[in-house]
Amino acid sequence: MKLNVKIMPKNGVLDPQGKAIENSLSQLGFKNFSEIRQGKIIEIDIDADKDQAINITDEMCKKLLVNLIIEDYEIIFDREE
Amino acid sequence: MKLNVKIMPKNGVLDPQGKAIENSLSQLGFKNFSEIRQGKIIEIDIDADKDQAINITDEMCKKLLVNLIIEDYEIIFDREE
Repeated sequence: MKLNVKIMPKNGVLDPQGKAIENSLSQLGFKNFSEIRQGKIIEIDIDADKDQAINITDEMCKKLLVNLIIEDYEIIFDREE
Repeated sequence: MKLNVKIMPKNGVLDPQGKAIENSLSQLGFKNFSEIRQGKIIEIDIDADKDQAINITDEMCKKLLVNLIIEDYEIIFDREE
């Protein structure tokens, strides 16, 4: 079962990469955009059924992948599943 | 209109971050997983309708956000939209 873990800086946590992108886009002449934030996405293929895969991924996030003090995460399945 | 740009290393391009995560997960005792790849996700809020937002984001990706030689990207709308 393939899944994605989307890891974003929590609201209120400074996101320098997002700010850098905003500045560069402005300099390139882009307008009408706001609130750019950059996070990480991790694709994992887990050999388990959906419920189990969610549990395993949750544990992976808490033990290794996510810094829960400054980051939020979300487990996303591919559309077709 | 809020959208996400998911940027992943192309298939065949070395993904050292993904490999590092695989190694760390193994050392923590996780099994049954494979093919871990890490990419970036960028959230953007664009003041335009859906078609326009896709066009603008495409241009942002090509001009700044994505290195098309080694990365693939995908524009993803939030579920509710």
